[in-house]
Amino acid sequence: MSLVFRRWASSISSKAHLHKPLPDSTFPVGYKLTGIHAGVKKNKEILDLGVILSTSSHPTSAAACFTRNAFKAAPVLVSDEILSRNGGRVRALVVNSGCANAVTGKQGLEDAWSMVKHTTSLLPVLDHNSSKDDALVMSTGVIGQNLPISNIIAGIRRAADSLSSDFAAWERAAKAFMTTDTFPKLRSRVFTINGVQYRLAGMDKGAGMIHPDMGPASTSFSSPRQLHATLLGCIMTDAAVSPRSLQNALTYAVDRSFNSISVDGDMSTNDTIIVLANGAAAPTDTNGHVQEIDEETDKDAFDVFKKALTDFAADLAQLVVRDGEGATKFVAVNVKGAPTYKDAHAIASKISTSALVKTALYGEDANWGRILAATGSVPLSPSSSSSTVPPPTIDPSKVSVTFIPSDGTAPLPVLVNGEPEKVNEDRAKEILVLEDINVVVDLGLGGEGEATYWTCDFSYEYVRINGDYRS
Amino acid sequence: MSLVFRRWASSISSKAHLHKPLPDSTFPVGYKLTGIHAGVKKNKEILDLGVILSTSSHPTSAAACFTRNAFKAAPVLVSDEILSRNGGRVRALVVNSGCANAVTGKQGLEDAWSMVKHTTSLLPVLDHNSSKDDALVMSTGVIGQNLPISNIIAGIRRAADSLSSDFAAWERAAKAFMTTDTFPKLRSRVFTINGVQYRLAGMDKGAGMIHPDMGPASTSFSSPRQLHATLLGCIMTDAAVSPRSLQNALTYAVDRSFNSISVDGDMSTNDTIIVLANGAAAPTDTNGHVQEIDEETDKDAFDVFKKALTDFAADLAQLVVRDGEGATKFVAVNVKGAPTYKDAHAIASKISTSALVKTALYGEDANWGRILAATGSVPLSPSSSSSTVPPPTIDPSKVSVTFIPSDGTAPLPVLVNGEPEKVNEDRAKEILVLEDINVVVDLGLGGEGEATYWTCDFSYEYVRINGDYRS
Repeated sequence: MSLVFRRWASSISSKAHLHKPLPDSTFPVGYKLTGIHAGVKKNKEILDLGVILSTSSHPTSAAACFTRNAFKAAPVLVSDEILSRNGGRVRALVVNSGCANAVTGKQGLEDAWSMVKHTTSLLPVLDHNSSKDDALVMSTGVIGQNLPISNIIAGIRRAADSLSSDFAAWERAAKAFMTTDTFPKLRSRVFTINGVQYRLAGMDKGAGMIHPDMGPASTSFSSPRQLHATLLGCIMTDAAVSPRSLQNALTYAVDRSFNSISVDGDMSTNDTIIVLANGAAAPTDTNGHVQEIDEETDKDAFDVFKKALTDFAADLAQLVVRDGEGATKFVAVNVKGAPTYKDAHAIASKISTSALVKTALYGEDANWGRILAATGSVPLSPSSSSSTVPPPTIDPSKVSVTFIPSDGTAPLPVLVNGEPEKVNEDRAKEILVLEDINVVVDLGLGGEGEATYWTCDFSYEYVRINGDYRS
Repeated sequence: MSLVFRRWASSISSKAHLHKPLPDSTFPVGYKLTGIHAGVKKNKEILDLGVILSTSSHPTSAAACFTRNAFKAAPVLVSDEILSRNGGRVRALVVNSGCANAVTGKQGLEDAWSMVKHTTSLLPVLDHNSSKDDALVMSTGVIGQNLPISNIIAGIRRAADSLSSDFAAWERAAKAFMTTDTFPKLRSRVFTINGVQYRLAGMDKGAGMIHPDMGPASTSFSSPRQLHATLLGCIMTDAAVSPRSLQNALTYAVDRSFNSISVDGDMSTNDTIIVLANGAAAPTDTNGHVQEIDEETDKDAFDVFKKALTDFAADLAQLVVRDGEGATKFVAVNVKGAPTYKDAHAIASKISTSALVKTALYGEDANWGRILAATGSVPLSPSSSSSTVPPPTIDPSKVSVTFIPSDGTAPLPVLVNGEPEKVNEDRAKEILVLEDINVVVDLGLGGEGEATYWTCDFSYEYVRINGDYRS
C-alpha cells in the first residue's frame, strides 16, 4: 500500500529505550517512595499506586499547577484545597493510575480525601507540622468511574513496606503513573546555588488528552486562576524554597514546559504538576534552621532555582511528547517575530494541533502550506484595549518558514518573506525522515514575541489507540 | 486485529450514492454553465474548470463570504475587490480545482485577474452593465504553486462551446469543484415568495481543511470584516434581491451552515461562498423592471428569502461533512442552556474538533468523558465588559449529555445534572453503529444560547489521505 502505511508496522513499538538507570547520587535526599499494584487495574503485574514522602526534618514546601478545565476531577479540587489550607506546606503525594476519579460527584471527593488521610498517616510526626492532611493526591485513567477505594487504602498501607530512596524505588513510583505510556518517565539532575549542590528528580506521564494549560494553585499568594490537560507530574528537590517562591517558580516553569506541549489538542480534567522542596540538602544556621530561597530576600538564588526548575520541567514535558499516543516524530515548533509572547504561543499551539500539519509530518511531507494556513487562522491579540485601534495583523509578505534539520546540517527555507522557495524535495525528505523535526515560523513583524511548542505527528496508531480505548 | 481496524476496509468507499439526478424544473432560470477539463489536473477524465454565467436581462446581484485566514489566496483578494468595486453587481463565476493559487505572490494576483477578464468576455453585453470585471473567481487545491494559466485561459474559451442550462450542465460545473470529494455536491429546490415561485441551486466541495469561519465581503454595506476555511461553494437563485440584502442574508446563512461544520479543524486560505441572484423569475413592472427584495422595503419577503437561503446552505454544508475525508459518521453536536449563542457555538466547535471525541465516534464508543473534557476546556465569554464582574462559569453539577438515536428510538442520557448514568453498553452500541449520531450537551445554565455543529469521525482513512496527499 502507501508509504505511510508501510511505516505503520514499524511505528508500533515501545519507546522503552528512553528509560535508563540513573545514578542514586543524582536523586534528592530526604524522600522515600514506592510504587505497587493496589488493584485499580486488573493486571497484577502492573503498578497502579505510587506514594512519595518527604522525610526531611525541615519544613517541606509544596506548589502545584492544576488543569483549567471546568470539570476538575476530585483529586484536583482536594489537592488545591489542601495547598491553600496548609499555606503551601505539604510533605507527601499519592497517585493512582487506571481511574481518574473525575465526574464522580460526592463519592469521588470522599475517596480523594480518604487517600490523603491514609497517606498522611505514613509520615513521621514532626513538631513543626500538625496538619492532618499532609498529602496531595493525583489520579489518571478513565473518567466517570469511582475508585476501588478499599483496594487503594489497603494499598497505601502496604506501600509502607517497600518505601525506599534508591533508584529502584523512584522507578517503581514512576511506573505507577503510567497509563498508555510505553515507558516510565523519570529524570534527575544536580544543580548548584551559592556553592551548595542540590538535586532535582521528577516523573510524569502522558500519553493522550495532552494539551495542558495549567494555572497556579489557589494559595493566597498565587496569581489569578484560570482553568486547563491528563498530564500528571511531580518534581522533588532537596533545596529549601519558600512556598510563595516555589509556586511562582513552578508557574513560570509550567508555562514554558508542560503548557507548551500537545499530543492531541485535548485538555484533561486532571492535569496536575506538583513540586516539593524539602530543604534536606540546605545548609543550616546555628539553630539548625534552614534559610529558604525566596525571590524577595535573594533574587539571584531564586533566579538560578527558577531556571533549573524550568529546564528540568521542559525535559520532563518533552518526554511526554516523545511518548505521545502513536507518535513517530518529535516536533519543535518555534514561532518568532510576533508582537507578543502570547501571540507567538497561540500560533505555535495552533500549528502543533493542526490535524493536517500532523498527518503531513507523519507522511514525512514538507507541506508548508498547511503550516501557513494554521498560522493565518490565529487572530493576533489587540495591542491596545481601545476599540478604535485596529488589532495588529499578520503580513503575508513578511512571513518565513524554515525546516531546521536535527542532524545539524544546513537549514531548509521553504518560504522567505511570503514567497515560496523552489524546494529540493530530496533534501526535504532527508530532513523529514529524521525522528526529530524543527520548524521555525518567523512572522517578520519585528516584535520580540517568541515561543516554542513541542508536538508529535498524527498516525494510524493514534486512531487505533483511541478508537479502541474502552473496548 | 481490532474492531475499528476491521471497519477500515468497509469505510474506504465512495459516497457516490449521495449524488442523484434532479429535475430540470428545480434549477433557477437565466443561468448557463459548464465544467470541462482544462489541464490543471493531469488526468484528462477529470473536470477541473467550471464556468457559471447569468444570462438574465435584469441586474444580477452577487454577495460572498470569504475566509478569515490572514493568508488569503489571490482569488479571494480579487473576488473581494471586484464585489466592492462593482457594488455587489456581478454576473459570472469561474472556478478551478487542482491548484489553490494561494501564496503565489504577484503572479497569483495577475492569474486570478486574467481568469476574471476572460470569463467576463463570455457574457452577453448589456446596456445597464459596463464593468470590465464582471466575474468572481475561486480556486482550490495545493497551496504555493502557480496556476497553469495558459491552460486555464484556453479552457475558459473552450467552455463557451458546452455552456448549457440542463441538469447535465449543472452536474459538470459541480464536478469541476471536486478535489478529495468522492461525489459532486449539487442540490436544488423551489421556494415561494408572495405567490411567486423561485428556485435555488448550488454546489460546493470539501473535503479537508474544513473548519470555515467566513466573514462578509468588503462591500461598503457589509458589517465589519474578520477573517477564517478550503470550502468552496456557490448558490444561484432566480429571485431578484438587492446587493445589500443578498449580502446580509448570506452572512446570516453562512454563520448557521458553513461556519458550523468541521472536518478537521483546519481553516483554509481559500474558503469562499458566493451567491448570485439574477431576477430572471421575478415579476416585472410596466417598464419591464423587476422590484428587488430588500429588507427595508419588504421585511417579510426578505425573511422568507433569508430562511430559504439558510436552510439550503445548511443542506449544502452538511453534504461536505458527509463526504469529509475518511468520514464514516455524520455527527450533529447540539449545545444548549448556554449563556449566549457564541458560548454554545464555541463549545459545539470544540467538541466537534476534539481528536479524542472523533476517534471515539469512529470506534463507536460512548465515551462521554471526552465530550465533557472538551466542553470544560472552553472558557465562557464575559457577560460584562467590566473587569470587576467575574465571567460566568460552567457548573459541572448542572450539565447533562444525551445521545439521540437517528433511528427515532428513545434517547440515551449518559450524564444527568453532572452525575453519570448507568449506561447500558448494548443500547449505546445500537445507537453508535448508526451512520448518523446526535449528541446533545445541555449546560443547564438557563441561558437561551443554543447552537448546532456538524462534524464527522476521525479514521485511519483520514490519516492515509492526508499523510499521502502530495506523494
